[in-house]
Amino acid sequence: MLDETARGVFTIAVTPFRPDGALDEESLDRVVEFYLEKGATGLTILGMMGEAGKLSAEESLTVVKRVTARAPVPVVVGVSSPGFAAMQTLSRAAMDLGAAGVMVAPPGSLRTDDQIAAYFRTAAEMLGEAPFVLQDFPLATGVQIPPKVILQIVEDCPTCVMLKHEDWPGLEKISALRAASNAGARRISILCGNGGLYLLEEMLRGADGAMTGFAYPEMMAHVIAAFEAGDEARARDLFDAYLPLVRYEGQPGLGLAIRKHTLARRGAIAHPTVRKPGGSLSAATIAELEALVARQEARLAQLG
Amino acid sequence: MLDETARGVFTIAVTPFRPDGALDEESLDRVVEFYLEKGATGLTILGMMGEAGKLSAEESLTVVKRVTARAPVPVVVGVSSPGFAAMQTLSRAAMDLGAAGVMVAPPGSLRTDDQIAAYFRTAAEMLGEAPFVLQDFPLATGVQIPPKVILQIVEDCPTCVMLKHEDWPGLEKISALRAASNAGARRISILCGNGGLYLLEEMLRGADGAMTGFAYPEMMAHVIAAFEAGDEARARDLFDAYLPLVRYEGQPGLGLAIRKHTLARRGAIAHPTVRKPGGSLSAATIAELEALVARQEARLAQLG
Amino acid sequence: MLDETARGVFTIAVTPFRPDGALDEESLDRVVEFYLEKGATGLTILGMMGEAGKLSAEESLTVVKRVTARAPVPVVVGVSSPGFAAMQTLSRAAMDLGAAGVMVAPPGSLRTDDQIAAYFRTAAEMLGEAPFVLQDFPLATGVQIPPKVILQIVEDCPTCVMLKHEDWPGLEKISALRAASNAGARRISILCGNGGLYLLEEMLRGADGAMTGFAYPEMMAHVIAAFEAGDEARARDLFDAYLPLVRYEGQPGLGLAIRKHTLARRGAIAHPTVRKPGGSLSAATIAELEALVARQEARLAQLG
Amino acid sequence: MLDETARGVFTIAVTPFRPDGALDEESLDRVVEFYLEKGATGLTILGMMGEAGKLSAEESLTVVKRVTARAPVPVVVGVSSPGFAAMQTLSRAAMDLGAAGVMVAPPGSLRTDDQIAAYFRTAAEMLGEAPFVLQDFPLATGVQIPPKVILQIVEDCPTCVMLKHEDWPGLEKISALRAASNAGARRISILCGNGGLYLLEEMLRGADGAMTGFAYPEMMAHVIAAFEAGDEARARDLFDAYLPLVRYEGQPGLGLAIRKHTLARRGAIAHPTVRKPGGSLSAATIAELEALVARQEARLAQLG
Repeated sequence: MLDETARGVFTIAVTPFRPDGALDEESLDRVVEFYLEKGATGLTILGMMGEAGKLSAEESLTVVKRVTARAPVPVVVGVSSPGFAAMQTLSRAAMDLGAAGVMVAPPGSLRTDDQIAAYFRTAAEMLGEAPFVLQDFPLATGVQIPPKVILQIVEDCPTCVMLKHEDWPGLEKISALRAASNAGARRISILCGNGGLYLLEEMLRGADGAMTGFAYPEMMAHVIAAFEAGDEARARDLFDAYLPLVRYEGQPGLGLAIRKHTLARRGAIAHPTVRKPGGSLSAATIAELEALVARQEARLAQLG
Repeated sequence: MLDETARGVFTIAVTPFRPDGALDEESLDRVVEFYLEKGATGLTILGMMGEAGKLSAEESLTVVKRVTARAPVPVVVGVSSPGFAAMQTLSRAAMDLGAAGVMVAPPGSLRTDDQIAAYFRTAAEMLGEAPFVLQDFPLATGVQIPPKVILQIVEDCPTCVMLKHEDWPGLEKISALRAASNAGARRISILCGNGGLYLLEEMLRGADGAMTGFAYPEMMAHVIAAFEAGDEARARDLFDAYLPLVRYEGQPGLGLAIRKHTLARRGAIAHPTVRKPGGSLSAATIAELEALVARQEARLAQLG
Repeated sequence: MLDETARGVFTIAVTPFRPDGALDEESLDRVVEFYLEKGATGLTILGMMGEAGKLSAEESLTVVKRVTARAPVPVVVGVSSPGFAAMQTLSRAAMDLGAAGVMVAPPGSLRTDDQIAAYFRTAAEMLGEAPFVLQDFPLATGVQIPPKVILQIVEDCPTCVMLKHEDWPGLEKISALRAASNAGARRISILCGNGGLYLLEEMLRGADGAMTGFAYPEMMAHVIAAFEAGDEARARDLFDAYLPLVRYEGQPGLGLAIRKHTLARRGAIAHPTVRKPGGSLSAATIAELEALVARQEARLAQLG
Repeated sequence: MLDETARGVFTIAVTPFRPDGALDEESLDRVVEFYLEKGATGLTILGMMGEAGKLSAEESLTVVKRVTARAPVPVVVGVSSPGFAAMQTLSRAAMDLGAAGVMVAPPGSLRTDDQIAAYFRTAAEMLGEAPFVLQDFPLATGVQIPPKVILQIVEDCPTCVMLKHEDWPGLEKISALRAASNAGARRISILCGNGGLYLLEEMLRGADGAMTGFAYPEMMAHVIAAFEAGDEARARDLFDAYLPLVRYEGQPGLGLAIRKHTLARRGAIAHPTVRKPGGSLSAATIAELEALVARQEARLAQLG
């Protein structure tokens, strides 16, 4: 079961599809292996970048079953939903299938502090004993959750064990939450998203690792390892080597197609297909990507 | 099967719940009877005011099955969904269970004309032969669909047979669409929402009726009947008698609780329960509602 | 100077333009007379429906100067602005010219409770001694201000003397604020907007009157007078007589053109011109409006 | 006068303030010198990052006067405004003072293709002979302008001579516009924003340069020079050296304080003050910034 001590790299897993849009279960197995090889200490499935919203309820269960059966690491399942009934149904099924916890993002209609806190109290009640990750991603959800509301949720909901942090800007938020836990609030795990674009500063502020899906997940593993070994200079060298591509993959909307293209190029999935609505890459984009990868490889070779 | 000739009152059906939040199937039967008695020529289920987003996939199917089995009128099923797979799954099941058509609202992420038209082309492809209603409700969806894009969708998608019109303001849109069909565009059915607040003017502009769920659905039936009988003065007298309550029920968010309270008061459902998150009415609201209903009854009695 | 005891009808004044879009100062004088004749106990200028955003800084001052010079009642000046410097400049000039107070709506970028409270603390500091009205209009601003944040602002800012209430739904908010002032919080004036659509219920909940610009401002004056005279039945009869037109004028965007057309029809302004971007009325709209006015006059004649 | 042939680096100028919030005119002179020394081929003032919205009308004119008097390069003045009257007033004054052109971003209320095109037609009419830059920044404005609408504006408005491109993702948009001009549409200048984060790819797609305000404007100048000299490898080396800081400054909201801190550190302005509402940097942020600058300098030294 997921708890507040979770650390490292929880890779946000893609959901592979065949060219005709059908779920590609073999590639799902393969990409799970790939993530584990590249240093994942956990996996997060059915997130936004896992195209969760595009799956039928049955397909979602297939993904959960397949991944939990195979992965020897904790699996977090995204269960965000327009309504609590669907959230509860999926959460129960996922936990029964061996998930370590679930992840919930707030619906875009929430505005005031009390609305947000009340939403998570009800969600926690619906989820029962399942540990949950609070996903804080204002760019995607439109919901701004100030630190004091996160702390209220942590206080109200003992099953809230982790923050998936991807506010932007968000570094001060990590500092505020860590100051609060140093002053006595329950300390939860903070894993950071945003494609890893601020990973180094996030670690410096007190994050416990990353939860993101950059197509070179070894970046997060190696940067965090160097950082935790006290070698900040090497952590920065590694980070900087990957940064041009992190930035390029970070383009909203387009980013997922770039990520899947790269994963297919690396052999981690068979097809780069993004399910409809979702595009393919232009020749110009592919050429830009190739140039970035070539430079990245050269630079990593120099670093040794 | 639903087609472009649909007219009259397609009542937006509530989904009744027990006080503990469970689906109340007996009340569902009862409220269907009630709607039919009050003049419904069709029913629309699993719409926004049917709390579709709060149901599990299984509950949604239960509602479809129960209503289609009982209603001798066309049943339209709301299938709007964050993704096409869930939309397709529900649509197929609904049509197999005897639905006459389905209804689709655009996701809030759409902005440009081409994005909107492309979305409905893909939706129509996914829905296959199922006739569909285009729900145009910018206040709820955030998506503004200009008349020329509606006409594009009508041209692109032969299965688009009806517009659920609730743009606000929206009267000029009806005029524009009717001018276009008079000039040769395919004429689809236009049924209007917004709780009936502009019903009279909508009929004058060329609408074919109403698709809304005001707790006195006989209002829509009687106003349309008087209007179609050429008695505009009586249509206005009736409309004006109900207007104070139409206005009061039209409060966003709160409106559904008012509607369910009124339906429970009229015996159409057993409990006024709105599923979480959703509130109950304050004593002040209930008192205001009672005062409005008492005046409405007095005024209708005068009209005869 | 405006204070917490303000009551009655603060009419939201239109800004009249000539057909070529130039400010029509003679009509401005005339419409001020008209509002006073129809029972205004105050005037609010440069509000959203006063097309404040479409005026140059110089034109804004012309309007303030002309109205304050002429009106023997308190004049509130809308000073909402993207930045505090422009707000301060206009507020100072307006107060120097004899305004009784100013009105501030929050910018759309505010989200969390603390952001909203902080914004008004800074605004109050910038406005100095000028009494201000807090405009709470989420449908237009996108900012939701819960009662506890309004109470925080009232506590933080002694110069906040009035709430322009147009949350929707908003009746429970009035009740919450009145309960708080009954329990010891400073009681500020609450005048209600939304075109008067909920005026009766707002008065029942404890509002002190209306601040809105419906083209028949005598409606608000007469309804409030009947209500304060204890004759609720007559208040409701009057309200209901005007309601079909209140509803019709309440169409967002289009409403201002309808209002100006009606005011021109009544002789209160010379031209119905809405400044660019802003449209004119179609023949169908004008016909609908005429029908509503004719029925309204007949019904008022019956009421005596 | 600005025209379609504009190229290079139009630096988005900050507006310097003293610690008490007053306009710092001496620093304004100094930062203009700084931008010119660092390779600016033009300047853009009163943009979003110039805190235009926080200035009074009088202060805006002071900035225009001071900069146009001093700068031997074309000066573009941001004139975006809630209304056309204020836009026209500022534009006329700016052009009279020697501006080369003005810049207009669409108001957030625009949604459909036709609304956007109509807005710019009216804006162009209001601006008269002043050449204008169309600012396309959906993340800030909420308005998505597809390529075909940009091309419509270019066709409708002969005075539209430049696109400030900062859609995100936006590379395909550049390609689409260049393909259209290769096929006969009028070719306008495209200068790119987004803090320079995609500068290299933007140049590859056909942009004419950058219009952005990164605190090391020599980055844009040097990268573009290397690129135009055909030395793409050096362009990439330079770009990569600055990228960690480009990324860090790119944090929305916080970015301006970081930029001003850096400019003050470099001696280009006397104080890092951001006008209210606008914060200061935490010690942690300053430390992160120092670390990034130190590494940047080391890496640039290696590149020679």
